[in-house]
Amino acid sequence: MENFIEQLTPTQKQELERQFAIYSNGVQEIVPIQELKNKIAKSIIQKTPLKVKLGLDPSAPDVHLGHTVVLNKLKQFQENGHIIQLIIGDFTGKIGDPTGKSVARKQLTDEEVKHNAETYFEQFGKVLDMEKVELYYNSKWLSTLNLEDIINLAASITVARLLERHDFSERLSTGKPISLHEFFYPLMQGYDSVELESDIELGGNDQHFNVLMGRHLQEHFNKEKQVVILLPLLEGLDGVEKMSKSKGNYIGVDEAPNEMYGKTMSIHDDLMGKYFDLVTNLSVEEKVQIKEDLENGILHPRDAKMLLGRTIVKMYHSADAAEQAEEHFKTVFQKGVLPTDIPEVIWNGEEQLSIIDLLVQLELQKSKGEARKMIQNGGVKLNGEKVDDVQLKVVVINEMIVQVGKRKFVKLIKG
Amino acid sequence: MENFIEQLTPTQKQELERQFAIYSNGVQEIVPIQELKNKIAKSIIQKTPLKVKLGLDPSAPDVHLGHTVVLNKLKQFQENGHIIQLIIGDFTGKIGDPTGKSVARKQLTDEEVKHNAETYFEQFGKVLDMEKVELYYNSKWLSTLNLEDIINLAASITVARLLERHDFSERLSTGKPISLHEFFYPLMQGYDSVELESDIELGGNDQHFNVLMGRHLQEHFNKEKQVVILLPLLEGLDGVEKMSKSKGNYIGVDEAPNEMYGKTMSIHDDLMGKYFDLVTNLSVEEKVQIKEDLENGILHPRDAKMLLGRTIVKMYHSADAAEQAEEHFKTVFQKGVLPTDIPEVIWNGEEQLSIIDLLVQLELQKSKGEARKMIQNGGVKLNGEKVDDVQLKVVVINEMIVQVGKRKFVKLIKG
Repeated sequence: MENFIEQLTPTQKQELERQFAIYSNGVQEIVPIQELKNKIAKSIIQKTPLKVKLGLDPSAPDVHLGHTVVLNKLKQFQENGHIIQLIIGDFTGKIGDPTGKSVARKQLTDEEVKHNAETYFEQFGKVLDMEKVELYYNSKWLSTLNLEDIINLAASITVARLLERHDFSERLSTGKPISLHEFFYPLMQGYDSVELESDIELGGNDQHFNVLMGRHLQEHFNKEKQVVILLPLLEGLDGVEKMSKSKGNYIGVDEAPNEMYGKTMSIHDDLMGKYFDLVTNLSVEEKVQIKEDLENGILHPRDAKMLLGRTIVKMYHSADAAEQAEEHFKTVFQKGVLPTDIPEVIWNGEEQLSIIDLLVQLELQKSKGEARKMIQNGGVKLNGEKVDDVQLKVVVINEMIVQVGKRKFVKLIKG
Repeated sequence: MENFIEQLTPTQKQELERQFAIYSNGVQEIVPIQELKNKIAKSIIQKTPLKVKLGLDPSAPDVHLGHTVVLNKLKQFQENGHIIQLIIGDFTGKIGDPTGKSVARKQLTDEEVKHNAETYFEQFGKVLDMEKVELYYNSKWLSTLNLEDIINLAASITVARLLERHDFSERLSTGKPISLHEFFYPLMQGYDSVELESDIELGGNDQHFNVLMGRHLQEHFNKEKQVVILLPLLEGLDGVEKMSKSKGNYIGVDEAPNEMYGKTMSIHDDLMGKYFDLVTNLSVEEKVQIKEDLENGILHPRDAKMLLGRTIVKMYHSADAAEQAEEHFKTVFQKGVLPTDIPEVIWNGEEQLSIIDLLVQLELQKSKGEARKMIQNGGVKLNGEKVDDVQLKVVVINEMIVQVGKRKFVKLIKG
């Protein structure tokens, strides 16, 4: 590729640096950095937008903040006039997993794929301007490939290279089966980039191998190679594992303002900087300022987290909703006052039982062991009074309020 | 599969044993033996022929005795009324090797494939009744497969299983590249069996993995599984390596009677039994008798080899040609008389030169080193006189006959 950077005027050079600063902020890796700069330079000189690709799995359309890490990055490109290419991987979705072993890869009907794509579209609309997004279904080109095309595609890659993918090498060495067709998923994802002539592909850091495949195949087909931007994986509410629906440690973009705010307030202090970087739409300067102020003690972590909560609710609902969610939170949790919307449960159980049994029967705790721990940690209250004795016998009275942790309440109505 | 063996009448049982004795004679492996018996039994009861498959590489149509090992086995099936399915692997032939690394897999045009198939047909006609053979080109079905079909096919096999193939595992462990498309050749070969519902597939012992793939894929597609019959590889004239054109250690089925007979006489005594078994059309009883007679000293190895030579020439030419070739051989080599058809070379070189230079310039030896060795081994004669001195200066005289080894002669005509 021609060197466009050295053809830039000083003003254009500034524009390159401005865009590059935005795109490179908060990312894990850019492969290769110099090519990204050159592509931006080309786009400035030729006044043509870059094509920025994101591939989507059609089977899991529930969007949470973990997904928005990459969406926010896409939005930055969109705000600078570049084209977003969203690819629904419907081809693989419709095949499913022919071995039937993977639950995640169950076979989808055309209707399911379409419905899931619409769900994506609706939820992505909370971040991106969907009118400007280009949407593709990869079955359009993948279903036209014949065996000869596929042999040619497969000839471009070695088995050793595929076995470099961490999960493949691990499975092979531990004797867990890899079906041959699994080798094709990265090839198919890569072929999408050939077809769409993408300039850039975004992905989570765990997609390293797959998104680089696009670069490899474009080269094989004599196309300009895409640049790969990998984004960090966002830890969920537990502060440990990647945010995911199955782990239950997520904040969904569709959640109600109070839930969204409350969950945000529960994240670990250590993760705040990362959340500001990856899931808010604040400017780079604002993010830097917040992190500095936190470090210098000018900003109290609790206040920073409340700003984070407001910012997130504002992004997915509105400024008003953000204020109300914050008020709600303050009332319930900070002032120790009971919320007004406590769920009521009709109690037809025993009149008298142990506090541990009560917590388990109300499903406020999963097991007796957990209930015992929660009491020992001082996390259980009856009508606002902390329970100290794990052996406590409770006499159930009407409208008794059982509280577990900061945010779980139940009002018992005697049936 | 139903048990047909137990449904046989005593006469039918005899017929089963008769056929089985023929098919199992001289083979390396039958997988599994019991299923072969059951398939024969089924064919006897239902009076339907078995479908016996052989796949052919369309790029190498020069048929030599090494190929006839499997052809003779096919002939046995044909003589018992079964159907021979010959499959020209034109699909892979037309693709060639997309990486361009394999010379053996160069891309063939439609015309080349057709021409090579005709050559096969013509040369196979020396063993099989080609009018009864079913000929297929596998591009007919392989070219209709799309990516979804291929994903389904690939899902039936694990990467670990493919890496069990000796050459794959060796290459992977020594860091030599395996292109992903190479994993598809065994799958395609196997898919041919699915398409043709073959009952039996024949192959050389080095095809173990590939022919078993047909069995595996038939099972995947809920078809009756083929039985695999593997035949020993025939060592060539050097007695060490597998007979092959590239090694120069072969006897072609198109060669002239004298050449064919002479080459046969040059094989190692140790290999005679194997040649009788694998490349002649003698009956099982005759073969057993010859081997017994050899062992007991009733038959002299030289006489046995002459019988082998006659038998082979008779198979590919005629009984008369066999007699004449034997006479020719006796005259030239056994009685020490010169043949009548010595090639003449016009000599415009030096009048006087070293014996070593003469042998090299006449291209009777490739290098001075080889020429020296040949002289030292007593393999060089001038006008019937053995040359003892590697330093000998030769004065070239008209019609001088130079002999190297038993069968290379040149008559020098002074130019």
